Amino acid sequence: MKLYDLEPSGNCYKVRLFAALTGIKLELEAVDFLAGMHKQSPVIDLNPWGELPVLVDGEISLRDSHAILIYLAKRYASADWYGETAAEQAEIQQWLATSANEIQHGPGAARLVDKFGYDLDKGRALGTASRVLGLLESHLSNNRWLACDRPTIADCAVMPYVALAWEGGITLDDYPAIQHWIGRIKALPGFIPMSGL
Amino acid sequence: MKLYDLEPSGNCYKVRLFAALTGIKLELEAVDFLAGMHKQSPVIDLNPWGELPVLVDGEISLRDSHAILIYLAKRYASADWYGETAAEQAEIQQWLATSANEIQHGPGAARLVDKFGYDLDKGRALGTASRVLGLLESHLSNNRWLACDRPTIADCAVMPYVALAWEGGITLDDYPAIQHWIGRIKALPGFIPMSGL
Repeated sequence: MKLYDLEPSGNCYKVRLFAALTGIKLELEAVDFLAGMHKQSPVIDLNPWGELPVLVDGEISLRDSHAILIYLAKRYASADWYGETAAEQAEIQQWLATSANEIQHGPGAARLVDKFGYDLDKGRALGTASRVLGLLESHLSNNRWLACDRPTIADCAVMPYVALAWEGGITLDDYPAIQHWIGRIKALPGFIPMSGL
Repeated sequence: MKLYDLEPSGNCYKVRLFAALTGIKLELEAVDFLAGMHKQSPVIDLNPWGELPVLVDGEISLRDSHAILIYLAKRYASADWYGETAAEQAEIQQWLATSANEIQHGPGAARLVDKFGYDLDKGRALGTASRVLGLLESHLSNNRWLACDRPTIADCAVMPYVALAWEGGITLDDYPAIQHWIGRIKALPGFIPMSGL
């Protein structure tokens, strides 16, 4: 099973982290992003979006980090990670949505501006970040994990760009519950870091 | 089962449409958005994000249209709509991601600017829309449905803001495969429209 990977991508790290936590073996294929290799064969053939990560498992190829998390969890990991009931999977999906939306366009976008020079609206990103971090802090003040009272793919999806927020000039000083939650994830058996985290 | 609903919201329509296609009975509770009722009790208590739709089914309350689609599909509809295998659910999830990301921030955002006067970057929205509509056209030139060779929640999630693109000044004239796909969805038994569609 091969993961087309980019080390500093939080979206790629979500997959590497989940695989590490669950003992899933991935062959990492580093893609030279600066050389534009994600827009060329073989990546563009596997994913017309030209984005990373891409997972290839036999005949199956998947784009989008959250789709990959669901695939790996459901096929290769304990059912705890994605749940089995409609209620649990929907509860987890709410946080995948938050990750794809407010987290990506808040702290994720601020980091793209500061660290990689992307032409995005930094002010809007900071506003989105402030709002979602407040909601996250409130939730984590009453819950040890994002969903289902246990570690799930929701934590793997949301944590990376929150923990990397400082690279977009955003401090977590005012969010102690978020800091403690990041600490709990870091303490999970098998945890691996990425650069900046 | 109650849906806190806003008629002109494409995200609310995704849920109403899916329920109609599958014969799920929803009690619709119209929320007065202009009066800010989505930021007040009971909606804000059910969903701290202060957004619609919100579904309440007994003890369960859910925010996010895609989480609601997964819940309804898995709990109350034929397994065809969300699949049962890891590969099918991940294939569908890829399109939920596209809906939440490029569709929402492309044609969805352009519509918010033109129809509702939101202060968003229309130029960026049009660029995102052009890119994703091209990818969608290419995919639908070779596939009758977005995922799994059959109607799924992916179609319910992606179609609304694509079919409403004209309200953001975006024409589908150059995308015949997308037009035919919208037509196939409209021909499904139980289909219901929304204003503008």
